[in-house]
Amino acid sequence: MTTDKVTNQDSPLDRFIAVIPAGGVGTRLWPLSRAAAPKFLHDLTGSGSTLLRATYDRLHPLAGTHMLVVTGVAHRAAVCSQLPEIKDSDLVLESEPKDSGAAIGLAAAILHERDPDTIMGSFAADQVISPEDLFQDAVREAIHTAAAGKIVTIGIKPTHPSTGFGYIRSGATLNIPGAPSAQSVVEFVEKPSEDVAQQYVDSGEYVWNAGMFVAPVALMLKHLEANQPVLFAGLQEIARAWDTPQRDEVKDRIWPTLPKIAIDYAVAEPAAAAGDVAVVPGIFGWDDVGDFASVGRLNSAREVDDVTVLGEGARVFTENASGVVVSDTKRVIALIGIKDVVIVDTPDALLVTTKAHSQRVKQAVDALKARGDADVL
Amino acid sequence: MTTDKVTNQDSPLDRFIAVIPAGGVGTRLWPLSRAAAPKFLHDLTGSGSTLLRATYDRLHPLAGTHMLVVTGVAHRAAVCSQLPEIKDSDLVLESEPKDSGAAIGLAAAILHERDPDTIMGSFAADQVISPEDLFQDAVREAIHTAAAGKIVTIGIKPTHPSTGFGYIRSGATLNIPGAPSAQSVVEFVEKPSEDVAQQYVDSGEYVWNAGMFVAPVALMLKHLEANQPVLFAGLQEIARAWDTPQRDEVKDRIWPTLPKIAIDYAVAEPAAAAGDVAVVPGIFGWDDVGDFASVGRLNSAREVDDVTVLGEGARVFTENASGVVVSDTKRVIALIGIKDVVIVDTPDALLVTTKAHSQRVKQAVDALKARGDADVL
Repeated sequence: MTTDKVTNQDSPLDRFIAVIPAGGVGTRLWPLSRAAAPKFLHDLTGSGSTLLRATYDRLHPLAGTHMLVVTGVAHRAAVCSQLPEIKDSDLVLESEPKDSGAAIGLAAAILHERDPDTIMGSFAADQVISPEDLFQDAVREAIHTAAAGKIVTIGIKPTHPSTGFGYIRSGATLNIPGAPSAQSVVEFVEKPSEDVAQQYVDSGEYVWNAGMFVAPVALMLKHLEANQPVLFAGLQEIARAWDTPQRDEVKDRIWPTLPKIAIDYAVAEPAAAAGDVAVVPGIFGWDDVGDFASVGRLNSAREVDDVTVLGEGARVFTENASGVVVSDTKRVIALIGIKDVVIVDTPDALLVTTKAHSQRVKQAVDALKARGDADVL
Repeated sequence: MTTDKVTNQDSPLDRFIAVIPAGGVGTRLWPLSRAAAPKFLHDLTGSGSTLLRATYDRLHPLAGTHMLVVTGVAHRAAVCSQLPEIKDSDLVLESEPKDSGAAIGLAAAILHERDPDTIMGSFAADQVISPEDLFQDAVREAIHTAAAGKIVTIGIKPTHPSTGFGYIRSGATLNIPGAPSAQSVVEFVEKPSEDVAQQYVDSGEYVWNAGMFVAPVALMLKHLEANQPVLFAGLQEIARAWDTPQRDEVKDRIWPTLPKIAIDYAVAEPAAAAGDVAVVPGIFGWDDVGDFASVGRLNSAREVDDVTVLGEGARVFTENASGVVVSDTKRVIALIGIKDVVIVDTPDALLVTTKAHSQRVKQAVDALKARGDADVL
């Protein structure tokens, strides 16, 4: 981890710094993922790495150790343990969640204060991507496109008409050197109905919005200032104090006052309307590990009969069973004559559902919260 | 518990002493029931009493405190805690399992040594019976029948053509005073096929063999001596030493040498062939709690939606689910969109199956034993 990024002379790739927002509990992965141990701190693919560590390692060939991580103050120790390379000044700790506008906006402002020519790339800590070289190729194209003055989103070629993702409608090819597949963005659209999603997929003009942005920090801030002047001013004040002894004092004073807004509304959509957004279609495999059915799909390594087993200490016995077992205990788990089941076994909570119902875990968590079982959430 | 049994003067009911064999792990109820905490030590009906305690309480109106309990030496503390009324000399502790011939035979021999006119009744500790007054009526008839010189089994009127029980074919009514429903036994038959079971039920001549015997101890021992002279001699030697300071020394020396045989083969079947066995048909509800589907049926008290929940500390959340949850932990258990499921949650082992497959738990336990997971069995 002591080597630095390898780039061409005078390449825009030299200006690249990666930002990793590590937030989001991953409610649909309860009881494994929860407030105290969110999704990004788990190894959900059986790779041996947490999703956070895998994200860092995937970005390292592009950014070297030039990375900023934004996470909740409660996760400081866990994140530092996963990413010992991260310096204190590159770890942005949110004292309370303020949505992605403040999180990514502050990263942009800090990086701009350090070097206004920086190109930032924001990549959530809880996604699964493979193969990595195709991802890195797409990011390189996005960096070249950003250097030409665009906010660039990396969209994912849809494999099915998902109703769980937003879509991006792409337009003309931009013909940017080093970015042959970059296209203009016509519009961002919300999660569609199944019929509409099918039309999107059939048209060939739409990609999934995976929430990945690559952009010149100056352009990010220009749109942020225009659309969210209060948020922009607060972030600027924190950023100016960031690399000074006043960092914590200023952050602690300003952060709680910031408005909550998603980066999509604060920057991406208005920038798209202004013609400043491009898209690079990703042809790599991508999964946001949204539920346990997805966890099952991503783990083909260890199967006991037709049951996918996740968890080092798992002692699973199956007879005439299929599905997914996620074990966070060392208990013996016996499955007999039950199909497509999802079992998540943790020290204080047990989930039993089916692959088909795994999206409904979120509602169960809401119900548990409502009835006062917050100790296990 | 200080009152004694209420009987008529000079009634055979005065000669009655109850024997409770408390053995059998109840493998099909794993992981709740296991070697260290067998079935009879659990409250499987949600009544607030263990099966053992409920058995004692059901027999108390007939036997008062005149009861003998036969159990494994490992369960001494648990049994004494459940039945503080039992004296040391009325607690027969098996240093190793020797099947029901030795267990019930030793009880008969001890009681005969104390009073050869005793009528004993043997009732397993892990059955569920209701209503109790109809059971007690049947036992009283059985005691009167025993006083007339019979070994009397209480059979259960079949409610369906079960292939899981042995059957008893009844013959002519015996016309014994105090026992209007007592009949001769033509034969004991093994667990039948489904077709044969249906014929048995249709004929009206067959009852389920519930393993309940009422008999003069002298008659039990006469048949035991005739059919199993080695077993008889060993049991006699222990019985003669039982109420002396040599009890433990003699028992520890003889018990390991005794042959293993079921009481059915050692006494009941040869006695039936000799015309010495009668049957009193029981018209009470009876369940041997053979599997978790049965546990579900017996517990209608606490339902969370369509899920029967057993266990004091259970924190169960259900959505669109049905089945049985047996909780031996205080964990939150969330069931979402899963039907007819059986979940048994214990500190070191978890079972997930369906009501339809609950009989197959035994095979799973055998497989776990074979692969070396004996720590949870």
